[in-house]
Amino acid sequence: MKAELLYEGKAKKVYRSSTDSEKLVLAYKNDATAFNGKKKESFPGKGRLNNEISSLIFPYLHNHGIRSHFIKRLNETEQLVLETEIIPLEVVVRNLATGSITKRLGFKEKTPFNPALIELFYKNDELDDPLINDDHALLLTDITLAELREIKVKALEINTVLREFFYTSNLTLVDFKLEFGRLPDGRIVLSDEISPDTCRLWDLETNAKMDKDVFRQGTGDLVTVYEQLLQRLEARV
Amino acid sequence: MKAELLYEGKAKKVYRSSTDSEKLVLAYKNDATAFNGKKKESFPGKGRLNNEISSLIFPYLHNHGIRSHFIKRLNETEQLVLETEIIPLEVVVRNLATGSITKRLGFKEKTPFNPALIELFYKNDELDDPLINDDHALLLTDITLAELREIKVKALEINTVLREFFYTSNLTLVDFKLEFGRLPDGRIVLSDEISPDTCRLWDLETNAKMDKDVFRQGTGDLVTVYEQLLQRLEARV
Repeated sequence: MKAELLYEGKAKKVYRSSTDSEKLVLAYKNDATAFNGKKKESFPGKGRLNNEISSLIFPYLHNHGIRSHFIKRLNETEQLVLETEIIPLEVVVRNLATGSITKRLGFKEKTPFNPALIELFYKNDELDDPLINDDHALLLTDITLAELREIKVKALEINTVLREFFYTSNLTLVDFKLEFGRLPDGRIVLSDEISPDTCRLWDLETNAKMDKDVFRQGTGDLVTVYEQLLQRLEARV
Repeated sequence: MKAELLYEGKAKKVYRSSTDSEKLVLAYKNDATAFNGKKKESFPGKGRLNNEISSLIFPYLHNHGIRSHFIKRLNETEQLVLETEIIPLEVVVRNLATGSITKRLGFKEKTPFNPALIELFYKNDELDDPLINDDHALLLTDITLAELREIKVKALEINTVLREFFYTSNLTLVDFKLEFGRLPDGRIVLSDEISPDTCRLWDLETNAKMDKDVFRQGTGDLVTVYEQLLQRLEARV
Protein backbone atom coordinates (compact mmCIF):
# COMPACT_ATOMS: atom_id res chain seq x y z
CA MET A 1 0.00 0.00 0.00
CA LYS A 2 2.90 2.39 0.68
CA ALA A 3 4.89 4.26 -1.92
CA GLU A 4 7.00 7.35 -1.29
CA LEU A 5 7.68 8.53 2.31
CA LEU A 6 6.40 12.11 2.39
CA TYR A 7 7.11 13.11 5.94
CA GLU A 8 8.31 11.69 9.23
CA GLY A 9 6.93 13.28 12.38
CA LYS A 10 7.56 12.56 16.05
CA ALA A 11 4.87 9.87 16.30
CA LYS A 12 3.96 8.94 12.70
CA LYS A 13 5.35 8.45 9.22
CA VAL A 14 3.29 9.63 6.27
CA TYR A 15 3.46 7.78 2.92
CA ARG A 16 1.68 8.29 -0.36
CA SER A 17 -0.60 5.35 -1.08
CA SER A 18 0.67 3.18 -3.92
CA THR A 19 -2.86 2.41 -5.13
CA ASP A 20 -4.43 5.87 -4.98
CA SER A 21 -2.29 8.96 -5.26
CA GLU A 22 -4.88 11.12 -3.44
CA LYS A 23 -4.65 8.98 -0.34
CA LEU A 24 -2.00 8.66 2.32
CA VAL A 25 -0.88 5.90 4.64
CA LEU A 26 -0.23 6.93 8.24
CA ALA A 27 2.21 4.55 9.96
CA TYR A 28 2.16 4.95 13.75
CA LYS A 29 5.64 4.79 15.32
CA ASN A 30 6.64 3.45 18.72
CA ASP A 31 8.33 6.72 19.70
CA ALA A 32 6.96 8.90 22.48
CA THR A 33 8.11 12.49 22.89
CA ALA A 34 7.23 15.15 25.45
CA PHE A 35 8.09 18.76 26.25
CA ASN A 36 8.40 19.64 22.56
CA GLY A 37 10.73 16.73 21.87
CA LYS A 38 13.08 17.31 24.82
CA LYS A 39 12.08 13.95 26.36
CA LYS A 40 12.04 10.98 23.99
CA GLU A 41 11.72 7.20 24.30
CA SER A 42 10.61 4.23 22.21
CA PHE A 43 7.92 1.82 23.45
CA PRO A 44 7.41 -1.39 21.44
CA GLY A 45 3.65 -1.76 20.91
CA LYS A 46 2.79 1.94 21.21
CA GLY A 47 2.37 2.41 17.44
CA ARG A 48 -0.13 -0.46 17.26
CA LEU A 49 -2.10 0.80 20.27
CA ASN A 50 -2.45 4.38 18.98
CA ASN A 51 -3.42 3.10 15.54
CA GLU A 52 -6.10 0.84 17.04
CA ILE A 53 -7.42 3.56 19.35
CA SER A 54 -7.47 6.19 16.61
CA SER A 55 -9.18 3.68 14.30
CA LEU A 56 -11.98 3.29 16.87
CA ILE A 57 -12.45 7.01 17.45
CA PHE A 58 -12.52 8.42 13.92
CA PRO A 59 -15.40 6.16 12.73
CA TYR A 60 -17.31 6.99 15.94
CA LEU A 61 -16.88 10.71 15.20
CA HIS A 62 -17.95 10.12 11.60
CA ASN A 63 -21.14 8.43 12.81
CA HIS A 64 -21.78 11.56 14.86
CA GLY A 65 -21.43 13.96 11.95
CA ILE A 66 -17.73 14.85 12.24
CA ARG A 67 -15.89 14.61 8.93
CA SER A 68 -12.22 13.68 9.09
CA HIS A 69 -9.39 12.53 6.85
CA PHE A 70 -9.75 8.94 8.16
CA ILE A 71 -10.75 6.26 5.62
CA LYS A 72 -9.91 2.94 7.26
CA ARG A 73 -7.53 0.91 9.39
CA LEU A 74 -5.15 -0.99 7.12
CA ASN A 75 -3.27 -3.22 9.56
CA GLU A 76 -1.91 -3.20 13.11
CA THR A 77 0.07 0.03 12.78
CA GLU A 78 -1.27 1.75 9.67
CA GLN A 79 -4.36 3.58 8.52
CA LEU A 80 -5.47 5.02 5.18
CA VAL A 81 -6.44 8.71 5.12
CA LEU A 82 -7.38 11.40 2.63
CA GLU A 83 -4.56 13.72 1.68
CA THR A 84 -5.08 17.17 3.18
CA GLU A 85 -3.03 20.30 3.27
CA ILE A 86 -2.21 20.63 6.96
CA ILE A 87 -3.20 23.90 8.65
CA PRO A 88 -0.28 24.62 11.01
CA LEU A 89 -2.40 25.08 14.12
CA GLU A 90 -2.79 22.93 17.21
CA VAL A 91 -6.30 23.44 18.49
CA VAL A 92 -6.37 22.57 22.20
CA VAL A 93 -9.73 22.07 23.93
CA ARG A 94 -9.77 22.09 27.73
CA ASN A 95 -12.57 20.92 30.04
CA LEU A 96 -10.45 21.01 33.20
CA ALA A 97 -7.26 22.95 33.96
CA THR A 98 -4.14 20.81 34.24
CA GLY A 99 -0.62 20.78 32.82
CA SER A 100 0.84 23.83 31.11
CA ILE A 101 -2.13 26.14 31.64
CA THR A 102 -1.84 25.94 35.43
CA LYS A 103 1.77 27.13 35.27
CA ARG A 104 1.32 29.58 32.40
CA LEU A 105 -1.81 31.38 33.63
CA GLY A 106 -2.11 30.33 37.28
CA PHE A 107 -5.39 28.42 36.97
CA LYS A 108 -5.84 26.03 39.90
CA GLU A 109 -5.54 22.32 39.05
CA LYS A 110 -8.94 20.93 37.94
CA THR A 111 -10.57 24.35 37.43
CA PRO A 112 -13.55 23.48 35.20
CA PHE A 113 -13.99 25.37 31.92
CA ASN A 114 -17.61 25.55 30.85
CA PRO A 115 -17.88 26.22 27.95
CA ALA A 116 -14.67 24.39 27.13
CA LEU A 117 -11.65 26.66 26.66
CA ILE A 118 -10.04 26.70 23.22
CA GLU A 119 -6.38 27.59 22.75
CA LEU A 120 -4.49 27.88 19.49
CA PHE A 121 -0.81 27.04 19.16
CA TYR A 122 1.30 27.68 16.08
CA LYS A 123 2.79 24.38 14.85
CA ASN A 124 6.42 25.35 14.52
CA ASP A 125 9.18 23.25 16.07
CA GLU A 126 11.78 26.03 15.91
CA LEU A 127 9.50 28.32 17.92
CA ASP A 128 8.41 25.52 20.32
CA ASP A 129 4.74 25.66 19.18
CA PRO A 130 3.88 29.00 20.82
CA LEU A 131 0.42 29.99 22.05
CA ILE A 132 -1.18 32.46 19.65
CA ASN A 133 -4.36 34.52 19.43
CA ASP A 134 -6.87 34.57 16.57
CA ASP A 135 -5.23 37.51 14.81
CA HIS A 136 -1.85 35.73 14.89
CA ALA A 137 -3.51 32.65 13.35
CA LEU A 138 -4.84 34.75 10.47
CA LEU A 139 -1.38 36.23 9.87
CA LEU A 140 0.62 33.01 10.26
CA THR A 141 -1.61 30.64 8.27
CA ASP A 142 -3.75 30.93 5.14
CA ILE A 143 -7.06 30.37 6.92
CA THR A 144 -9.79 32.98 6.80
CA LEU A 145 -11.72 34.38 9.75
CA ALA A 146 -14.78 32.35 8.70
CA GLU A 147 -12.68 29.17 8.63
CA LEU A 148 -11.16 29.93 12.01
CA ARG A 149 -14.67 30.29 13.46
CA GLU A 150 -15.69 27.04 11.74
CA ILE A 151 -12.69 25.23 13.25
CA LYS A 152 -13.60 26.44 16.74
CA VAL A 153 -17.24 25.41 16.36
CA LYS A 154 -16.07 21.97 15.14
CA ALA A 155 -13.64 21.64 18.03
CA LEU A 156 -16.48 22.22 20.50
CA GLU A 157 -18.74 19.74 18.65
CA ILE A 158 -15.95 17.16 18.74
CA ASN A 159 -15.56 17.82 22.46
CA THR A 160 -19.25 17.13 23.05
CA VAL A 161 -19.10 13.86 21.12
CA LEU A 162 -15.81 12.69 22.65
CA ARG A 163 -16.78 13.52 26.23
CA GLU A 164 -19.81 11.24 25.87
CA PHE A 165 -17.71 8.57 24.12
CA PHE A 166 -15.11 8.46 26.88
CA TYR A 167 -17.67 8.91 29.68
CA THR A 168 -19.30 5.61 28.73
CA SER A 169 -15.86 4.02 29.23
CA ASN A 170 -15.65 5.57 32.70
CA LEU A 171 -13.17 8.22 31.57
CA THR A 172 -13.08 11.98 31.97
CA LEU A 173 -11.90 13.82 28.86
CA VAL A 174 -9.75 16.48 30.52
CA ASP A 175 -8.28 18.13 27.41
CA PHE A 176 -7.12 17.25 23.92
CA LYS A 177 -5.35 18.57 20.83
CA LEU A 178 -6.80 18.60 17.34
CA GLU A 179 -5.34 19.38 13.94
CA PHE A 180 -7.26 20.23 10.81
CA GLY A 181 -6.43 19.95 7.12
CA ARG A 182 -7.81 21.25 3.86
CA LEU A 183 -9.11 18.85 1.20
CA PRO A 184 -8.37 19.59 -2.48
CA ASP A 185 -11.92 21.01 -2.80
CA GLY A 186 -11.11 23.56 -0.06
CA ARG A 187 -13.18 22.02 2.72
CA ILE A 188 -11.57 21.74 6.14
CA VAL A 189 -11.70 18.40 7.94
CA LEU A 190 -10.31 16.96 11.15
CA SER A 191 -6.94 15.32 10.54
CA ASP A 192 -3.90 13.92 12.42
CA GLU A 193 -4.74 11.44 15.22
CA ILE A 194 -6.89 11.17 18.32
CA SER A 195 -5.17 8.96 20.87
CA PRO A 196 -3.80 8.97 24.41
CA ASP A 197 -0.85 10.90 22.92
CA THR A 198 -3.20 13.79 22.14
CA CYS A 199 -5.90 13.50 24.85
CA ARG A 200 -5.73 13.66 28.62
CA LEU A 201 -8.01 10.91 29.97
CA TRP A 202 -8.61 10.29 33.67
CA ASP A 203 -10.44 7.38 35.27
CA LEU A 204 -13.87 8.71 36.23
CA GLU A 205 -13.65 7.44 39.83
CA THR A 206 -9.96 7.40 40.73
CA ASN A 207 -8.66 10.19 38.42
CA ALA A 208 -5.84 7.76 37.45
CA LYS A 209 -4.14 9.01 34.29
CA MET A 210 -4.64 6.88 31.19
CA ASP A 211 -2.66 8.95 28.69
CA LYS A 212 0.80 10.21 27.79
CA ASP A 213 1.13 12.00 31.13
CA VAL A 214 2.35 8.66 32.60
CA PHE A 215 5.36 9.08 30.27
CA ARG A 216 5.68 12.88 30.72
CA GLN A 217 5.66 12.49 34.48
CA GLY A 218 7.32 9.04 34.66
CA THR A 219 4.48 7.69 36.82
CA GLY A 220 3.57 4.49 34.97
CA ASP A 221 4.24 2.13 32.08
CA LEU A 222 2.95 3.72 28.89
CA VAL A 223 2.21 0.50 27.00
CA THR A 224 0.33 -1.09 29.92
CA VAL A 225 -1.80 2.02 30.32
CA TYR A 226 -2.53 2.40 26.59
CA GLU A 227 -3.42 -1.33 26.43
CA GLN A 228 -5.89 -0.90 29.32
CA LEU A 229 -7.38 2.11 27.57
CA LEU A 230 -7.84 0.18 24.30
CA GLN A 231 -9.55 -2.65 26.20
CA ARG A 232 -11.96 -0.21 27.84
CA LEU A 233 -12.81 1.42 24.52
CA GLU A 234 -13.26 -1.96 22.78
CA ALA A 235 -15.53 -3.17 25.59
CA ARG A 236 -17.60 -0.04 25.06
CA VAL A 237 -17.85 -0.45 21.29
CA MET B 1 -2.40 67.31 46.98
CA LYS B 2 -1.24 63.83 48.04
CA ALA B 3 -2.66 61.82 50.89
CA GLU B 4 -2.32 58.07 51.35
CA LEU B 5 0.06 56.07 49.11
CA LEU B 6 -2.17 53.44 47.51
CA TYR B 7 0.28 51.58 45.31
CA GLU B 8 3.85 51.72 44.11
CA GLY B 9 4.53 50.30 40.67
CA LYS B 10 7.74 49.99 38.66
CA ALA B 11 7.49 53.48 37.12
CA LYS B 12 4.87 55.35 39.19
CA LYS B 13 3.50 55.85 42.66
CA VAL B 14 -0.26 56.23 43.09
CA TYR B 15 -1.66 58.41 45.89
CA ARG B 16 -5.20 59.32 46.86
CA SER B 17 -5.77 63.05 46.33
CA SER B 18 -6.07 64.95 49.60
CA THR B 19 -8.64 67.36 48.14
CA ASP B 20 -10.94 64.94 46.31
CA SER B 21 -11.19 61.33 47.43
CA GLU B 22 -12.35 60.18 43.97
CA LYS B 23 -9.18 61.41 42.34
CA LEU B 24 -5.66 60.06 42.37
CA VAL B 25 -2.22 61.60 42.04
CA LEU B 26 0.20 59.74 39.78
CA ALA B 27 3.81 60.49 40.70
CA TYR B 28 6.24 59.45 37.94
CA LYS B 29 9.42 57.83 39.27
CA ASN B 30 12.93 57.96 37.83
CA ASP B 31 13.22 54.16 37.71
CA ALA B 32 13.39 52.29 34.42
CA THR B 33 12.82 48.54 34.26
CA ALA B 34 12.93 46.08 31.37
CA PHE B 35 12.43 42.37 30.73
CA ASN B 36 9.70 42.16 33.37
CA GLY B 37 11.82 43.86 36.02
CA LYS B 38 14.99 41.80 35.46
CA LYS B 39 16.92 44.92 34.30
CA LYS B 40 16.52 48.01 36.48
CA GLU B 41 18.16 51.43 36.74
CA SER B 42 17.33 54.92 37.98
CA PHE B 43 17.63 57.98 35.70
CA PRO B 44 17.33 61.42 37.34
CA GLY B 45 14.92 63.44 35.19
CA LYS B 46 13.04 60.47 33.71
CA GLY B 47 10.00 60.93 35.96
CA ARG B 48 9.63 64.55 34.90
CA LEU B 49 10.02 63.73 31.21
CA ASN B 50 7.40 60.96 31.21
CA ASN B 51 5.00 63.13 33.18
CA GLU B 52 5.43 65.98 30.69
CA ILE B 53 5.09 63.72 27.66
CA SER B 54 2.04 61.92 29.06
CA SER B 55 0.53 65.31 29.96
CA LEU B 56 0.83 66.34 26.30
CA ILE B 57 -0.63 63.14 24.89
CA PHE B 58 -3.71 62.58 27.06
CA PRO B 59 -5.25 66.02 26.31
CA TYR B 60 -4.52 65.50 22.61
CA LEU B 61 -6.36 62.17 22.73
CA HIS B 62 -9.22 63.82 24.62
CA ASN B 63 -9.52 66.45 21.89
CA HIS B 64 -9.83 63.56 19.42
CA GLY B 65 -12.65 61.82 21.26
CA ILE B 66 -10.66 59.41 23.45
CA ARG B 67 -11.76 59.46 27.09
CA SER B 68 -9.10 58.70 29.68
CA HIS B 69 -8.51 58.93 33.40
CA PHE B 70 -6.30 62.03 32.91
CA ILE B 71 -7.49 65.29 34.47
CA LYS B 72 -4.45 67.58 34.53
CA ARG B 73 -0.72 67.99 35.05
CA LEU B 74 -0.08 69.06 38.65
CA ASN B 75 3.64 69.78 38.64
CA GLU B 76 6.90 68.54 37.08
CA THR B 77 6.45 64.88 38.08
CA GLU B 78 2.78 64.51 39.01
CA GLN B 79 -0.61 64.41 37.35
CA LEU B 80 -4.17 64.24 38.65
CA VAL B 81 -6.34 61.40 37.34
CA LEU B 82 -9.76 59.87 37.95
CA GLU B 83 -9.75 56.78 40.14
CA THR B 84 -10.50 53.68 38.10
CA GLU B 85 -10.56 50.02 38.89
CA ILE B 86 -7.67 48.69 36.80
CA ILE B 87 -8.48 45.91 34.34
CA PRO B 88 -5.44 43.58 34.57
CA LEU B 89 -4.74 43.50 30.84
CA GLU B 90 -1.92 45.00 28.82
CA VAL B 91 -3.30 45.80 25.39
CA VAL B 92 -0.42 45.91 22.92
CA VAL B 93 -0.98 47.46 19.47
CA ARG B 94 1.61 46.75 16.79
CA ASN B 95 2.06 48.55 13.45
CA LEU B 96 5.45 46.97 12.70
CA ALA B 97 7.01 43.77 14.01
CA THR B 98 9.94 44.28 16.36
CA GLY B 99 11.04 43.08 19.78
CA SER B 100 9.41 40.07 21.44
CA ILE B 101 7.04 39.19 18.59
CA THR B 102 9.92 38.56 16.18
CA LYS B 103 11.42 35.99 18.56
CA ARG B 104 8.14 34.55 19.79
CA LEU B 105 6.39 34.05 16.45
CA GLY B 106 9.18 34.42 13.89
CA PHE B 107 7.87 37.58 12.18
CA LYS B 108 10.64 39.33 10.28
CA GLU B 109 11.81 42.64 11.76
CA LYS B 110 9.63 45.54 10.45
CA THR B 111 6.88 43.29 9.03
CA PRO B 112 3.96 45.74 8.68
CA PHE B 113 0.64 44.87 10.34
CA ASN B 114 -2.30 46.43 8.55
CA PRO B 115 -4.74 46.51 10.26
CA ALA B 116 -2.65 46.91 13.39
CA LEU B 117 -2.18 43.71 15.39
CA ILE B 118 -3.63 43.63 18.90
CA GLU B 119 -2.19 41.37 21.59
CA LEU B 120 -3.44 40.91 25.13
CA PHE B 121 -1.15 40.16 28.05
CA TYR B 122 -2.32 39.26 31.54
CA LYS B 123 -0.90 41.78 34.03
CA ASN B 124 0.59 39.43 36.61
CA ASP B 125 4.17 39.84 37.81
CA GLU B 126 4.40 36.29 39.21
CA LEU B 127 3.47 34.86 35.80
CA ASP B 128 5.69 37.36 33.89
CA ASP B 129 2.70 39.02 32.13
CA PRO B 130 1.89 36.12 29.77
CA LEU B 131 0.30 36.49 26.33
CA ILE B 132 -3.35 35.42 26.46
CA ASN B 133 -6.23 35.00 24.04
CA ASP B 134 -9.69 36.54 24.29
CA ASP B 135 -11.21 33.56 26.12
CA HIS B 136 -8.42 33.70 28.72
CA ALA B 137 -9.15 37.41 29.21
CA LEU B 138 -12.81 36.65 29.92
CA LEU B 139 -11.83 33.98 32.45
CA LEU B 140 -9.02 35.91 34.16
CA THR B 141 -10.68 39.33 34.46
CA ASP B 142 -14.20 40.56 35.12
CA ILE B 143 -14.67 42.13 31.68
CA THR B 144 -17.48 41.00 29.41
CA LEU B 145 -17.17 40.04 25.75
CA ALA B 146 -18.83 43.33 24.74
CA GLU B 147 -16.30 45.27 26.85
CA LEU B 148 -13.38 43.33 25.38
CA ARG B 149 -14.60 44.23 21.88
CA GLU B 150 -14.99 47.85 22.97
CA ILE B 151 -11.43 47.90 24.33
CA LYS B 152 -10.06 46.57 21.03
CA VAL B 153 -12.01 49.11 18.98
CA LYS B 154 -10.72 51.87 21.27
CA ALA B 155 -7.16 50.59 20.98
CA LEU B 156 -7.36 50.84 17.19
CA GLU B 157 -8.90 54.32 17.38
CA ILE B 158 -6.12 55.41 19.72
CA ASN B 159 -3.59 53.96 17.26
CA THR B 160 -5.06 56.03 14.43
CA VAL B 161 -4.92 59.23 16.48
CA LEU B 162 -1.44 58.58 17.90
CA ARG B 163 0.12 57.59 14.58
CA GLU B 164 -0.93 60.94 13.14
CA PHE B 165 0.23 62.75 16.30
CA PHE B 166 3.71 61.23 16.19
CA TYR B 167 3.94 61.40 12.39
CA THR B 168 3.73 65.19 12.53
CA SER B 169 6.78 65.05 14.85
CA ASN B 170 8.63 62.94 12.27
CA LEU B 171 8.17 59.77 14.29
CA THR B 172 6.89 56.31 13.39
CA LEU B 173 4.66 54.78 16.05
CA VAL B 174 5.93 51.18 15.88
CA ASP B 175 3.95 49.69 18.77
CA PHE B 176 2.59 50.64 22.18
CA LYS B 177 0.94 49.29 25.32
CA LEU B 178 -2.34 50.51 26.75
CA GLU B 179 -4.16 49.83 29.99
CA PHE B 180 -7.81 50.47 30.69
CA GLY B 181 -9.73 51.05 33.91
CA ARG B 182 -13.34 51.10 35.00
CA LEU B 183 -14.92 54.27 36.41
CA PRO B 184 -17.34 53.99 39.36
CA ASP B 185 -20.25 54.30 36.87
CA GLY B 186 -18.99 51.18 35.04
CA ARG B 187 -17.62 52.92 31.95
CA ILE B 188 -14.20 51.84 30.72
CA VAL B 189 -11.60 54.52 29.98
CA LEU B 190 -7.96 54.59 28.94
CA SER B 191 -5.71 54.74 32.01
CA ASP B 192 -2.05 54.32 33.05
CA GLU B 193 0.45 56.37 30.97
CA ILE B 194 1.45 56.95 27.36
CA SER B 195 5.14 57.71 27.17
CA PRO B 196 8.40 56.45 25.62
CA ASP B 197 8.27 53.78 28.35
CA THR B 198 5.12 52.34 26.76
CA CYS B 199 5.54 53.25 23.05
CA ARG B 200 8.18 52.34 20.49
CA LEU B 201 8.94 55.48 18.47
CA TRP B 202 11.41 55.60 15.58
CA ASP B 203 12.67 58.65 13.75
CA LEU B 204 10.77 58.74 10.45
CA GLU B 205 13.92 59.11 8.33
CA THR B 206 16.73 57.39 10.26
CA ASN B 207 14.69 54.81 12.27
CA ALA B 208 16.71 55.94 15.33
CA LYS B 209 14.99 54.71 18.48
CA MET B 210 13.48 57.40 20.69
CA ASP B 211 12.03 55.19 23.44
CA LYS B 212 12.89 52.77 26.23
CA ASP B 213 14.64 50.42 23.78
CA VAL B 214 17.77 52.59 24.22
CA PHE B 215 17.76 51.37 27.85
CA ARG B 216 16.65 47.78 27.07
CA GLN B 217 19.40 47.43 24.49
CA GLY B 218 21.96 49.74 26.14
CA THR B 219 22.36 51.76 22.92
CA GLY B 220 21.90 55.32 24.16
CA ASP B 221 21.31 57.67 27.06
CA LEU B 222 17.68 57.40 28.13
CA VAL B 223 17.31 60.91 29.54
CA THR B 224 18.90 62.56 26.49
CA VAL B 225 16.60 60.65 24.15
CA TYR B 226 13.45 61.33 26.20
CA GLU B 227 14.41 65.03 26.38
CA GLN B 228 14.77 65.16 22.57
CA LEU B 229 11.40 63.45 22.22
CA LEU B 230 9.70 65.96 24.54
CA GLN B 231 11.22 68.85 22.55
CA ARG B 232 9.90 67.40 19.29
CA LEU B 233 6.42 66.95 20.73
CA GLU B 234 6.40 70.45 22.26
CA ALA B 235 7.51 71.96 18.96
CA ARG B 236 4.59 70.17 17.31
CA VAL B 237 2.04 71.30 19.87
